[in-house]
Amino acid sequence: MFAMSFGSRNRKSPFFDATVAAGVTHFSVYNHMYMPVSFGDAIGEYWRLVNGVSMWDVSVERQVEICGPDAETLVRYLVPRDLKNLRIGQGKYVPLCDHAGRLLNDPVLLKVDDDTFWLSIADSDVLLWARAIAAERGYDARIVEPDVSPLAVQGPAAEAVVADLFGDWVRDLKYFWFKETDLDGIPVLVARSGWSKQGGFEIYLRDGSRGGDLWHAVSEAGRRFDIAAGAPNYIERIESGLLSYGADTDPDTNPFEVGLGKFVDLDRHDDFVGKTALRALHERGIRRRLTGLFIEGPPMQPNTHPLPVLQGNRKVGKVSAAAYSPRLERNVSLALLEAAALEIRDPLLVITETGQAQATPSELPFL
Amino acid sequence: MFAMSFGSRNRKSPFFDATVAAGVTHFSVYNHMYMPVSFGDAIGEYWRLVNGVSMWDVSVERQVEICGPDAETLVRYLVPRDLKNLRIGQGKYVPLCDHAGRLLNDPVLLKVDDDTFWLSIADSDVLLWARAIAAERGYDARIVEPDVSPLAVQGPAAEAVVADLFGDWVRDLKYFWFKETDLDGIPVLVARSGWSKQGGFEIYLRDGSRGGDLWHAVSEAGRRFDIAAGAPNYIERIESGLLSYGADTDPDTNPFEVGLGKFVDLDRHDDFVGKTALRALHERGIRRRLTGLFIEGPPMQPNTHPLPVLQGNRKVGKVSAAAYSPRLERNVSLALLEAAALEIRDPLLVITETGQAQATPSELPFL
Repeated sequence: MFAMSFGSRNRKSPFFDATVAAGVTHFSVYNHMYMPVSFGDAIGEYWRLVNGVSMWDVSVERQVEICGPDAETLVRYLVPRDLKNLRIGQGKYVPLCDHAGRLLNDPVLLKVDDDTFWLSIADSDVLLWARAIAAERGYDARIVEPDVSPLAVQGPAAEAVVADLFGDWVRDLKYFWFKETDLDGIPVLVARSGWSKQGGFEIYLRDGSRGGDLWHAVSEAGRRFDIAAGAPNYIERIESGLLSYGADTDPDTNPFEVGLGKFVDLDRHDDFVGKTALRALHERGIRRRLTGLFIEGPPMQPNTHPLPVLQGNRKVGKVSAAAYSPRLERNVSLALLEAAALEIRDPLLVITETGQAQATPSELPFL
Repeated sequence: MFAMSFGSRNRKSPFFDATVAAGVTHFSVYNHMYMPVSFGDAIGEYWRLVNGVSMWDVSVERQVEICGPDAETLVRYLVPRDLKNLRIGQGKYVPLCDHAGRLLNDPVLLKVDDDTFWLSIADSDVLLWARAIAAERGYDARIVEPDVSPLAVQGPAAEAVVADLFGDWVRDLKYFWFKETDLDGIPVLVARSGWSKQGGFEIYLRDGSRGGDLWHAVSEAGRRFDIAAGAPNYIERIESGLLSYGADTDPDTNPFEVGLGKFVDLDRHDDFVGKTALRALHERGIRRRLTGLFIEGPPMQPNTHPLPVLQGNRKVGKVSAAAYSPRLERNVSLALLEAAALEIRDPLLVITETGQAQATPSELPFL
């Protein structure tokens, strides 16, 4: 076991002290911030998410705020998805691609106002990307990182907890929709969203000095449901086939390879970044595919690096995330593989961290 | 103490296994890679760097390779420094700024060939930035991250070690100059550079599969000088006043505030990113300044987050890095402070992680 080193280069979250008090054991770094990833009981945290309710510090989902007269023009140019029906108070999951069609992030886009949008980002510097595009195109848009830090409440009991805090109106929120409100003076935005398939909400804290207060309020409201601190769940996200940008992708991944083709509207009449390249990639067909793989053998520990996948003696891709699924009672994983290797149906071998194991493709999600 | 979590999203270095074998105890994350930052003996590692020779895995200094017919045009547009005398085989330290003059990285630029440049970057996604600018301006340039991983050899005995490995020609290398060569078939580029003021080299490994071999060769050559594994040194870099982008800077920092004004050529005739904004910032004058601060009291442990600096009851800035200097036998630190606060010369107070302490400004470097 190696220790995480803390310093000024990466930031602590507004919920940092609360997660320490709650017993966090493992951190990673995401968007230049420390992210809690384990409280020392991987299986317990998994079952709590699946059967009850869990709360996660996901302030690392930084917001890139785009506002001003040309904000909408810029957002439409950055995003390959058609946004013509996007309303204030609504979010949409959107791939971001570069001019060659390579995926560079997969944020949730929130329309906060007619001239104000947030990109709630995965782990890459979208702020720099958006600023470069806006300035070079001469758009009148201000692009900043606002003081906003999401706290996730996830699991089948999440709705009851969040309704206790904010009122029954949250039960009527549709998926990815959100509303600005406050909790005893703590300014927040409540969204039905989150990086699990167990249902739940993300409470976007809008005042970093109130992190402890918000954490405490959610803990108290969740007490009768046995809420406890967790983190984006390694096992559940594999079972659910949720993409982790930077882990499941590589520098050349395009959205069609990882199941995001449905969010790329190639027939849009207006221009957007990567349109020509994405059309060509789509025409050419999918050469690699993110797929599920069952991996045989005894229960696996989560992998610490990508695992090579062989067919015969040839490397045909890599497993990015593998873990033992308590519900399926098998090892499950996500792998980016050559599409041809999946068609051949010859046996696949995964080089694990302890040896090697046979693997069988599965549709996604597993569950 | 909290554990570092390892997974596919951040990469292991080609030297990872070697650093584990050498006893690494602490990691951070930098440019989406795991970076060794301590081998458990902070003071011993410091004295080895100052008096002998230390070897560091700095593969996190990723290269952004810009090549093609418009490579030079793009590089000149990205960089505010005048590059007209830059020769093949030469490097230069360059700030990168956005269109508003905000610092976004401070890489070393290496001219590898007439149409090939590397930016050896600090911790932000310069790849995305450069791709956005190039594509929007229609430049014919290919921008990729090549398979290149620097290994630093630093300290007064570094030259003898590197000369033993590569020959006496390395003694004639001027600061920031480099040469392509190989070590028993391991392709490398040897540069006189490194993130310390103790002198030394960076060996840019050009084949990630040979990390263990290169590490072993350097270890063997350094044996008679008692070389050992270290990391970019927290104490020495404060003493030497070396900038850590992302730690000593904040989202609005401009190069004039942190001593990089001499690398901004406002009189250049050709255009570059941020030229107009940088001229206006220069005209306006410096409002904040990166300065040294002596901090009174018993020896400090390295800080884990920025420390507020007060003058009277008013916050006038923050300390980004503080540590006890074994050579000065005082606590030294780097702080970004309001320039006016430094002119007033009223007492400064630092809110440390254990209390508060008086502080006195110092010119940089301390040593």
